Amino acid sequence: MSSVSAVKALVFDVFGTCVDWRTSLIDDFTKWSAKRGVNADWTALVDGWRAVYMASMDEVRKHPERGYQILDTLHRASLEKLVAQFGIQGLTEADLNYLTMGWHRLHAWPDTVSGLTRLKTKYIISPLSNGNVALLTNMAKFAGLPWDLILSAELFEHYKPDPETYLGAARLLGLAPEQVMMVAAHNGDLKAAQTNGLKTAFVARPTEYGPLQKYDFEATGDWDIVAGDFNGIADKMGC
Amino acid sequence: MSSVSAVKALVFDVFGTCVDWRTSLIDDFTKWSAKRGVNADWTALVDGWRAVYMASMDEVRKHPERGYQILDTLHRASLEKLVAQFGIQGLTEADLNYLTMGWHRLHAWPDTVSGLTRLKTKYIISPLSNGNVALLTNMAKFAGLPWDLILSAELFEHYKPDPETYLGAARLLGLAPEQVMMVAAHNGDLKAAQTNGLKTAFVARPTEYGPLQKYDFEATGDWDIVAGDFNGIADKMGC
Repeated sequence: MSSVSAVKALVFDVFGTCVDWRTSLIDDFTKWSAKRGVNADWTALVDGWRAVYMASMDEVRKHPERGYQILDTLHRASLEKLVAQFGIQGLTEADLNYLTMGWHRLHAWPDTVSGLTRLKTKYIISPLSNGNVALLTNMAKFAGLPWDLILSAELFEHYKPDPETYLGAARLLGLAPEQVMMVAAHNGDLKAAQTNGLKTAFVARPTEYGPLQKYDFEATGDWDIVAGDFNGIADKMGC
Repeated sequence: MSSVSAVKALVFDVFGTCVDWRTSLIDDFTKWSAKRGVNADWTALVDGWRAVYMASMDEVRKHPERGYQILDTLHRASLEKLVAQFGIQGLTEADLNYLTMGWHRLHAWPDTVSGLTRLKTKYIISPLSNGNVALLTNMAKFAGLPWDLILSAELFEHYKPDPETYLGAARLLGLAPEQVMMVAAHNGDLKAAQTNGLKTAFVARPTEYGPLQKYDFEATGDWDIVAGDFNGIADKMGC
């Protein structure tokens, strides 16, 4: 515990770490399309959407002259390409908006709310996500995530894993980096957080990508905490 | 109700509207100084501190070339001047920090938590305060304010009543200005919010400034809601 005894705030990756984006989106779109009468392979669409996520943020990173674009905007642009590519017919503007806003309607993993609720009694808890502020706020209301505040890449106009996100979170909290612990199911996120002086906690979410999952089945770095789920983190953080 | 039926989020002024800064600080400092063995007229210090609040933000507004300074920094600078002016002796660096951080330890008015808790069931609730993010986050933990997120002047690098704060809040929430309602005990704050297209709600806090209170005893503008306290707002907003 000594290495994490100075921690005052835990900041969480959200997509995959707190919420099951894949199952949530596939279920939501499947139910919606049955009523709406639109036919598509929603599993393929969702997997394809997430597959272009990193590249869409790289475009923002490579072209600062275009200005920062929030994740809702990137999601919408990617969706339009995928709809054309998959040949999905008959989607209106309202439909495209409904699908894009699906990322605001994601369900938590079973342990997320109970673990966060325990951690909140002793620590400041916040997302630190590439999702924009509105997305994270709406998701928190939808999924019952009891955040103290919402920290988003949007506030720093930089996407993770840019250092501005981790250091910006500590700055806004009025804390030193080592007083902030990053929690993620992704070793790459934790590596960047650690490089910037944050403490780190890993939880495996081995079904995040469904049958497509290729890595992050286990901790591959020297993280301060490795736990089975959020309640395991609460146990180890004395909550 | 028709004029406010589109409202999705309520954003709140904090100092005076949600919390009783004057009584909180005077009580905190009086108790602390008895233990610490420092003598001062804490009521006069607190009133003097708040009296230079507007001027300290005006300095930031007038000198953008100096960069934005958060309210903790302004509070500290004002305190140092007042300590010299009042001839308070024997304060260490730790003491000055303790007093400055007093603004993070403010108590809610009696109706604040119950009213916010009701409003939260139907709306997004957030501060929209000149306090910095860490101040507002720590205060929420201290006073039990159940915010969904923390919106602060710090995020916009502009102090209220600059338009960037009201419009920035709506932008981060992904809402049109008329979908956001500003709640304040200060007619001036509401006037600026209304000018920028937000809906408005007034609650009187007639003891905010103690015997020094000179205005804001009642609504002086055409606000969408005028209520006796936060539960009155919840009543009128259908919660």
